[in-house]
Amino acid sequence: MPLYEEPPDGVVLAAEMLLAWTRSLVVEIGTPEDIAADVAEVLVAADARGIASHGTARLEQYVRLIDAGVVDPAARPVVVRSRAALSLLDAANGWGHHAGRVAMDRAIAGAAETGTSISIVRNTNHFGIAGWYAMRAAARGMIGISLTNSSPLVAPTRGRVPMIGTNPIAVAVPAGRHGQLVLDMATSTVPRGRIEVAARRGERLPPGWAIAADGTPALTPEAALEGALQPLGGQEETGGYKGYGLALVVDILTGVLAGAHFGPNIVGLFSTDAPSDLGQLFGAIDVDAVHDRTAFEQRVDGYIDQLAAAPRIPNAPGPVLYPGQPEAERAARNRRQGIVVDRAHYESLARLAARFGLPAPAGAPRSGEARD
Amino acid sequence: MPLYEEPPDGVVLAAEMLLAWTRSLVVEIGTPEDIAADVAEVLVAADARGIASHGTARLEQYVRLIDAGVVDPAARPVVVRSRAALSLLDAANGWGHHAGRVAMDRAIAGAAETGTSISIVRNTNHFGIAGWYAMRAAARGMIGISLTNSSPLVAPTRGRVPMIGTNPIAVAVPAGRHGQLVLDMATSTVPRGRIEVAARRGERLPPGWAIAADGTPALTPEAALEGALQPLGGQEETGGYKGYGLALVVDILTGVLAGAHFGPNIVGLFSTDAPSDLGQLFGAIDVDAVHDRTAFEQRVDGYIDQLAAAPRIPNAPGPVLYPGQPEAERAARNRRQGIVVDRAHYESLARLAARFGLPAPAGAPRSGEARD
Repeated sequence: MPLYEEPPDGVVLAAEMLLAWTRSLVVEIGTPEDIAADVAEVLVAADARGIASHGTARLEQYVRLIDAGVVDPAARPVVVRSRAALSLLDAANGWGHHAGRVAMDRAIAGAAETGTSISIVRNTNHFGIAGWYAMRAAARGMIGISLTNSSPLVAPTRGRVPMIGTNPIAVAVPAGRHGQLVLDMATSTVPRGRIEVAARRGERLPPGWAIAADGTPALTPEAALEGALQPLGGQEETGGYKGYGLALVVDILTGVLAGAHFGPNIVGLFSTDAPSDLGQLFGAIDVDAVHDRTAFEQRVDGYIDQLAAAPRIPNAPGPVLYPGQPEAERAARNRRQGIVVDRAHYESLARLAARFGLPAPAGAPRSGEARD
Repeated sequence: MPLYEEPPDGVVLAAEMLLAWTRSLVVEIGTPEDIAADVAEVLVAADARGIASHGTARLEQYVRLIDAGVVDPAARPVVVRSRAALSLLDAANGWGHHAGRVAMDRAIAGAAETGTSISIVRNTNHFGIAGWYAMRAAARGMIGISLTNSSPLVAPTRGRVPMIGTNPIAVAVPAGRHGQLVLDMATSTVPRGRIEVAARRGERLPPGWAIAADGTPALTPEAALEGALQPLGGQEETGGYKGYGLALVVDILTGVLAGAHFGPNIVGLFSTDAPSDLGQLFGAIDVDAVHDRTAFEQRVDGYIDQLAAAPRIPNAPGPVLYPGQPEAERAARNRRQGIVVDRAHYESLARLAARFGLPAPAGAPRSGEARD
């Protein structure tokens, strides 16, 4: 996921305060306490990790869905089928964050018994950052996997219109000194939000990001927003059919397998027209079932060390990184120094507070001092 | 995997004949009958599917490894640890194709009991096309997954030298009318073999395929062959860090998890210096454990139909395809009309036949007639 730059004129919010405030707000909009705790955890984790597009800035959109009766804030997932290493859950059109947490915990418990386990969820909603669920398994010494489908934004290779979601793949791996290695990637070259940022900044687009409505490469954000995103790899010649294949496989392992919506049949995730009925998959592999976990974590650390020491290309913007490293560094700092949100984001939280009779979240203007 | 064009001056070999001949040859070089049957199946499947780089053209290289004592042709995999849904196998440095078949069958049997299951293999060797193992699960109504690490050819994002393999991801899905959907992709933009083809043809390279030894984009095949492949997505700006992340996750799920070699520590797959000690992972998800398999296959068929009917970009070289469609069409024709191999490939088989006292495989020169 792309890390968002911290706005220089933003508002600083203490992470613990934002967590408690978000939990209170989600309760006020009709969510039971335990479900609200899950929603708040996932949203504030996104803000802390620098993924502003998937955190509390989305709260107004979630509230709109609940207002419209399109999401049921009190619904609890139900186990529909269960085998020793596989469960199918129906999220009953409730919060995706809660159903995801429950489904991942079930996969973790299953893997502790059988070595590996998956939970498949149907009739669910947007669940925030896919990486959060995978990281929950990694925190318990397991390799975690999390997949979701999403509404169509990507054109298949040779296709001209959006037919597939940006369907992310998240895998989290427990490391030792290095904490966790967390791959959390959309299967498109860039997410739609990155095009919107380019539009605000007046940037041109490199080839491989998007196509225009007529199917030619989109060289401006405006053309891209009327066309479709390209799958990872871009054009056919540069391997775009692989990104398309990955997006399709994610959709099959989630929407098609779960019996949920898939591909071009999914309505917009934040559309109030109808429930999203997304499909999601959560998996865990117990490292201890294969062999000693400490030895495994040492190997991961050693691999990361080898990569970090790699000779670099000319003009590299920094060292070779491992997946999730920038997000982990951002989260560590934000938990110490507070999360910087932009003005529009802060105002959306203040509007929600006013509507639901809560104090606005306590924020301080960002000072001119550099943050480390 | 890239489909190879049929050489116009090639030799046509009947698929069943080539299968029997390959089995006999593999027996002659010291392999028990049942193991040889697995090796021949996988190699001839690659030839039939148009993946000439991974089929019987590799036999001389395998024989060289056995001659050098670097691969044990008679070794059988041993189950080291076993849980209800997870096994760890040691391939005892035998044929990768056999260990892979055994490990996938174990995952399939496990998934039939528990819903999903994985087998992890250490101390193994090159196993041909990853897709073959995944397809074995799909033929039994399961979603099959197959991963392997491989010797370092890819530079990590910002890195200048090869440190990671082209570590493929294969996923096969049972469909109805459409047979199977098979994604079988290297996590690099292109495989090294594609650069070699460009060198023979005197082509220039598009950006995103490879970097030169100095870390700048390689614009000629010669520069690329002295440098490193790029991960899927190419440069950092076009999402190359995602392909790098996928390659790394495949390595962690195979070499690191299995306790085999990984990353820059793997010797060349066909090097006679030392055993490869690769890691591989095979997984199966039983569709029937989630819900009715026929309904699932109908959904996959419907999805494929929607994609095939998609409006196309200008100058599209053909319709929108599903993963594995070109390979399946090639295989169907080749099983009817024979497999066309190029002259160098045929001569390598004839040399092996002469050395091991077998008749050369019965081939006919390709006639000028068009094949359908």
